[in-house]
Amino acid sequence: MSFREDGAAALDWAARYLERVGELPVLAQVEPGDIRARLPASPPEYGEPFADVLRDLDEILLPGITHWQSPRFFAYFAVSAGEPGILAELLAATLNSVAFLWRTSPASTELEALTLDWTAQLLGLPGGWHGHIEDTASTSTIAALAAAREATGRSLVVCSEHAHSSVDKAARLLGLELRKTPSDDQFRLRVDALDLTDAAAVVATVGTTSIASVDPVPALADACAGAGVWLHVDAAYAGSAWVCPELRWSQAGVERADSLVVNAHKWLFTPMDCSLLWTRRPEDLRRAFSLVPEYLRTSEEVDSLSEYGPALGRRFRSLKLWAILRCYGREGLQARIREAVRLAELFEGWVRAEPGWEVCAPRHFSLVCFRHEGDDEHNEAIVESLNRSGELFLSHTRLHGRYVLRLAIGNERTTEADVRRAWEALRAAL
Amino acid sequence: MSFREDGAAALDWAARYLERVGELPVLAQVEPGDIRARLPASPPEYGEPFADVLRDLDEILLPGITHWQSPRFFAYFAVSAGEPGILAELLAATLNSVAFLWRTSPASTELEALTLDWTAQLLGLPGGWHGHIEDTASTSTIAALAAAREATGRSLVVCSEHAHSSVDKAARLLGLELRKTPSDDQFRLRVDALDLTDAAAVVATVGTTSIASVDPVPALADACAGAGVWLHVDAAYAGSAWVCPELRWSQAGVERADSLVVNAHKWLFTPMDCSLLWTRRPEDLRRAFSLVPEYLRTSEEVDSLSEYGPALGRRFRSLKLWAILRCYGREGLQARIREAVRLAELFEGWVRAEPGWEVCAPRHFSLVCFRHEGDDEHNEAIVESLNRSGELFLSHTRLHGRYVLRLAIGNERTTEADVRRAWEALRAAL
Repeated sequence: MSFREDGAAALDWAARYLERVGELPVLAQVEPGDIRARLPASPPEYGEPFADVLRDLDEILLPGITHWQSPRFFAYFAVSAGEPGILAELLAATLNSVAFLWRTSPASTELEALTLDWTAQLLGLPGGWHGHIEDTASTSTIAALAAAREATGRSLVVCSEHAHSSVDKAARLLGLELRKTPSDDQFRLRVDALDLTDAAAVVATVGTTSIASVDPVPALADACAGAGVWLHVDAAYAGSAWVCPELRWSQAGVERADSLVVNAHKWLFTPMDCSLLWTRRPEDLRRAFSLVPEYLRTSEEVDSLSEYGPALGRRFRSLKLWAILRCYGREGLQARIREAVRLAELFEGWVRAEPGWEVCAPRHFSLVCFRHEGDDEHNEAIVESLNRSGELFLSHTRLHGRYVLRLAIGNERTTEADVRRAWEALRAAL
Repeated sequence: MSFREDGAAALDWAARYLERVGELPVLAQVEPGDIRARLPASPPEYGEPFADVLRDLDEILLPGITHWQSPRFFAYFAVSAGEPGILAELLAATLNSVAFLWRTSPASTELEALTLDWTAQLLGLPGGWHGHIEDTASTSTIAALAAAREATGRSLVVCSEHAHSSVDKAARLLGLELRKTPSDDQFRLRVDALDLTDAAAVVATVGTTSIASVDPVPALADACAGAGVWLHVDAAYAGSAWVCPELRWSQAGVERADSLVVNAHKWLFTPMDCSLLWTRRPEDLRRAFSLVPEYLRTSEEVDSLSEYGPALGRRFRSLKLWAILRCYGREGLQARIREAVRLAELFEGWVRAEPGWEVCAPRHFSLVCFRHEGDDEHNEAIVESLNRSGELFLSHTRLHGRYVLRLAIGNERTTEADVRRAWEALRAAL
């Protein structure tokens, strides 16, 4: 293998992919088992050229890829792998750092702390918080709740009925009980229904997954402070919006959180995976996770970031975040976030103006929840037929028992023309 | 930014790095804080060229990088990011798949199942096991023990005193009690001292971190079967050796395990992170982790791999494993494993033949544990001075209370000349 030649071919494939991704069917148009059936059941005895891998990626795998980089990916929370971040992943894989101790990768450990501080500044968070990177918000929430259990000695977690399923999953993993609190007509946790008896932690969400609603964090911070309860804020999606001052209304109270998760791979243009976890109580995270066996002892008096979460081995994830923050700058991040919000607002306006269509929840950021008149089956059929067409990819949720469509804008390649095309496709699908 | 131009520069940097990595000091020659102090305290307001990121990587970060890709990295378990795997990471970042459901990335989900089946064949594991990828063995063990708790309803884990610290960490996270069993004179769990009362799981290790010892898995499998206890085998390092039939003696009994972890990023030449977790009881993993909220419901009748572990979002990790398995083939993997074992055997012979030096544990794979006559301080000074020289990187452990040096061979670039240079440096350090 020639790394330079094969690398040039891989890079060319990547460049062509990004150039044409808008023309590919967004949702993979395959049935379960289709891709696997086209691949050999056994590995090769002898090495094959890398060119064959690239060829099969193109011919066999590509039809089975749902294009998260497509400008008409509107499902879940749309994300982007920005180009500087993609190239940084090539560099990180080349270095192959395994940063379980400071000494095994000083640059990775220190750049991680630095980029988390930079991001905290960009988002307007309090100074002095301890930040590190986990793979996903699921893991960040596991880490935060383990610290809350350690700090309080209690084993009950309280959240809204609209909290993400990762909170349920974390509680189950940690053996914690979960108490779900009802929400109000705007899908915000009802503080009047809050019961903190025996609670270790409250998980407040800024930007829920279904509808991007914002829990009343100031009131929850008051309640937590009064009861000695850990406040974890899940702003996995919406936290990135705080790079824009005009969207920081949704940050109220977050400065009093004990821990906060924001996924840079969601709306900060960083490739998967890069979940940012800050805490103002790092000692509690360390108490929950630090373990230094003999074979990991070193002479340095310095923290290792593996002492703040479940995994020991850690990739050099900060490199891609650093590349994005540097190549986009505050201004570039703001421009992208603002454009996504502008496009969502535009789409919301079209839905509101069109008879027979309804916006189903307040739009705060870049997510619009809406539906057409008629029953759930009718609305589900719209989504399914559009997704099957490959023209765009939408997802759904259920609000007050009704099936609701979700259009999320977050890919940096999405233009007004793409959103208009989505709206036209929706109207044509009736 | 021009993706093609910046990409060519990044690729050139990567190629030059791999060409010169053998000449760089293996352990970063910096003090805590050095790297961070040379970087701006705040992020830029406006975007900067990617070329500036590359320049700073070279000038500022590189001195803070411990070179895991160096042929004279002999610490912990030496690893390799093989070139096809590095390029596959570029492709995976370009696609930016988030495989939390089958439909969000059919190719990723199906290639993951396929590559795990391929690897099972290569390692001679039983057919029909369910396999998926986690980030690290820490997470794989968490997943396995959560399933064991679910399956048995019990909350005690049993392992040897030489089990990896990730078992302690997983037990603490899951709220499980841990019972450590003494080991024999070859650092293997003593079955005669085993007490399975109330046990949910036994963790047996094939290739412990300190000394690569092999627990008596057949006897542990007998005991577990009799007591209805889950048997998890941690072969994070040594499992890859099973690609060579002559090393499969260490696989005895593993065919009866309930779960097994092998890290492809340790000794299967795949870049971090790629921990392979197989189970013959996938339903128990699903019971421990499956949660499908409304916004993740789809019409397909198909498994999503996020239902088998803690994280929801998942990178397209199988792409790099696929690239390695295809470009190396069974023969290429065997040749690399055999060469590492041969070099370790050679080094072991030199140590045994030299007066004043002692091999401190049986060498089974590519790890040699040894020491020089004299006290712990003397031996520690040897390690510290060599690591400070940048010439090579060794780590240590403690056996029967004594400080012991570890030389681990696993980087595919390591040659006999590198091992000889290490031995000469060790003798010169006295």
